[in-house]
Amino acid sequence: MENFVYHNPTKVLFGKDAEDAVGREIVPYAERVLLHYGQGSAEKSGLLGRIRRSLDEAGVAYYELGGVMPNPRLSLVHEGIDICKKNGIGLVLAVGGGSVIDSAKAIAAGAPNSDNVWDYFSKQSKPKAVLPVAVVLTIPGSGSESSQAAVLTNEETQEKLDFGNDRLRPVFSVLNPQLTVTVSPYYTAMGIADAMAHVMEAYFTDTPHVDVTDRMCEGVLKSLIKCGYMVREQPDNYEVRAEIMWASKVAIDGTLDAGRVGDWGSHYIEHEVSAAYDVAHAAGLTAVLPAWMRYVYQHNRDRFIKFAMRVFNIEYDPDDPDMTVLKGIQSLKDFFRLMGLPVSLRELDITDKKELDKIAENAERHGGGSIGHFVELKKDDIRAILELAF
Amino acid sequence: MENFVYHNPTKVLFGKDAEDAVGREIVPYAERVLLHYGQGSAEKSGLLGRIRRSLDEAGVAYYELGGVMPNPRLSLVHEGIDICKKNGIGLVLAVGGGSVIDSAKAIAAGAPNSDNVWDYFSKQSKPKAVLPVAVVLTIPGSGSESSQAAVLTNEETQEKLDFGNDRLRPVFSVLNPQLTVTVSPYYTAMGIADAMAHVMEAYFTDTPHVDVTDRMCEGVLKSLIKCGYMVREQPDNYEVRAEIMWASKVAIDGTLDAGRVGDWGSHYIEHEVSAAYDVAHAAGLTAVLPAWMRYVYQHNRDRFIKFAMRVFNIEYDPDDPDMTVLKGIQSLKDFFRLMGLPVSLRELDITDKKELDKIAENAERHGGGSIGHFVELKKDDIRAILELAF
Repeated sequence: MENFVYHNPTKVLFGKDAEDAVGREIVPYAERVLLHYGQGSAEKSGLLGRIRRSLDEAGVAYYELGGVMPNPRLSLVHEGIDICKKNGIGLVLAVGGGSVIDSAKAIAAGAPNSDNVWDYFSKQSKPKAVLPVAVVLTIPGSGSESSQAAVLTNEETQEKLDFGNDRLRPVFSVLNPQLTVTVSPYYTAMGIADAMAHVMEAYFTDTPHVDVTDRMCEGVLKSLIKCGYMVREQPDNYEVRAEIMWASKVAIDGTLDAGRVGDWGSHYIEHEVSAAYDVAHAAGLTAVLPAWMRYVYQHNRDRFIKFAMRVFNIEYDPDDPDMTVLKGIQSLKDFFRLMGLPVSLRELDITDKKELDKIAENAERHGGGSIGHFVELKKDDIRAILELAF
Repeated sequence: MENFVYHNPTKVLFGKDAEDAVGREIVPYAERVLLHYGQGSAEKSGLLGRIRRSLDEAGVAYYELGGVMPNPRLSLVHEGIDICKKNGIGLVLAVGGGSVIDSAKAIAAGAPNSDNVWDYFSKQSKPKAVLPVAVVLTIPGSGSESSQAAVLTNEETQEKLDFGNDRLRPVFSVLNPQLTVTVSPYYTAMGIADAMAHVMEAYFTDTPHVDVTDRMCEGVLKSLIKCGYMVREQPDNYEVRAEIMWASKVAIDGTLDAGRVGDWGSHYIEHEVSAAYDVAHAAGLTAVLPAWMRYVYQHNRDRFIKFAMRVFNIEYDPDDPDMTVLKGIQSLKDFFRLMGLPVSLRELDITDKKELDKIAENAERHGGGSIGHFVELKKDDIRAILELAF
């Protein structure tokens, strides 16, 4: 096990009607907030109305900025930063899923500083201060409600980059599973896949002696798969939505990757695919991840055997250990497919290969010369994985 | 799943030589601390010397109070409170295992207030303020390094009671597995059993739809059992010590019991056994827990079948489901026995039954009329469990 620091102070308010507490939870942090949200569903559902009422009751003033799109954009973040600077905003309140939360984190990082917020994502500088962020989660999966990371797209340069800072972990997050009952089957499936991918980035490691976190990872994966089957049959079952919501939070809150060096290569490849084609993050992941697994498994076959046996109950075949691995990968693809998710780039309507070289080049460059820790991937490796994913 | 609030802000510094950071981690909290420890092992090993040096280097002044015994005593807590009051202490630094940490928490609760600290444990009043607590852990198991609870013995009244307060979670805890390599086999075994018992108190619940946390609980239990076998063979293996240390923290930090109503009946029975006979907490638990399981399993047999199947790989027997349960309980006893732990009250040198009635009465009374949530236990139930445990 590696040395590590674990510190996740995000307070989670979990359960029915939990958003009613938003106003009074904000009081210790700020008198004026930026209410940040997406493209209308939170307004239509009445959620934003309830949140405004809660803020009013607590005497918290608010400015609003909606319009966050999947793969959130730098331009809107600049708008948010301007509003914060002009109005002495003390906290950014995100109401939405991962895209809204990431956009809010970027605004919170930029607002108290004079440099360009994109410099943080391109690792040119670091924020001196950040505003606190709080969350009312409507689509689980990203785990951004309790993580220190954000991903942002610069639409001018067509770059999609991530940025992490411990002070960006939300001070509190409201997780009310009721709010997720109306999430469409496709977005629900993507949320489950995103959470699974986070666990798998931690799981595929070369760090030895990580049995406790291995077992916890496997448990969360098994539960998410079970939830995947159940939520298709019973989309309005509160209990299944609650399990998905808690599992997605645990998947990336620091518990499962404690003392492990995770990989994150698939995520970096996916970011480049999304930047080039504007596909949804999780859909890109389900296309890339099985190809990545197939490309790298020989590096530590036993770990992939463990995955196949413990997550998908594949029987170990001593006569053909590779087949055990491949059955595990196939089971994962079958699950994604059953959930209606793409398992190839073609299914994402990427129909010719001419962008693949550029995607591979960008991934290598943005990774500072390579990506991944379990296996270090250079341009040619990434190109080969994209070929397998095609 | 039940509604819940999860908030565990304890910062964990995990790994080799992690205690070197103690001084500078304290600086934001206090200029003067109470250095609180046990009966000499931390002095002999040189750990206290290193901590004093770290405090000196950071410019943190310290007063000292050693002598904490297993089942920590109220009288020493009063001494600590006096030192804090007289010297304007700003933080209590515990160097030791669960007993030292619990004693430190009691001091931290009492120091800033004028009422008797025992009133908090007997639920007569609540502290208005508490001092921050920090920890350098030397014996894992209690999980007190990240929990909000403490257990204290009033030697005058022969009462052993618990007290919980969210503000008593340590602000930071140093977890260096190197410090635990010299823990004796018996104390190591007790630590593992204590952590397992914490997981099991969460596991045996009537809350439906808790699959994610069920799976995580089972994973942590399986890992602790594996570590139990390994640490007997390789007591100085850092990696095994690291796994035990992280598992014990996770076992009671709020992750595994999120949204569940735990039981804690066995713990309350054990507290009374310890109060009457001064046995070590975990040794009392391993004697009581299997008897509790046997007494209550019919209440929700399927949960005990799940435990047997998933934790001990017992095959489900459709012709005799009870046998599946009983094999699971027997496997747990076999594991405890292999670790050199008592599985009956007799093995704790409790040789006559005349105290059992009083223990049962006290447990019922201190529980406010009953104990346990999975099954509510009255005096006669507790007496019957003690009989099974004899």
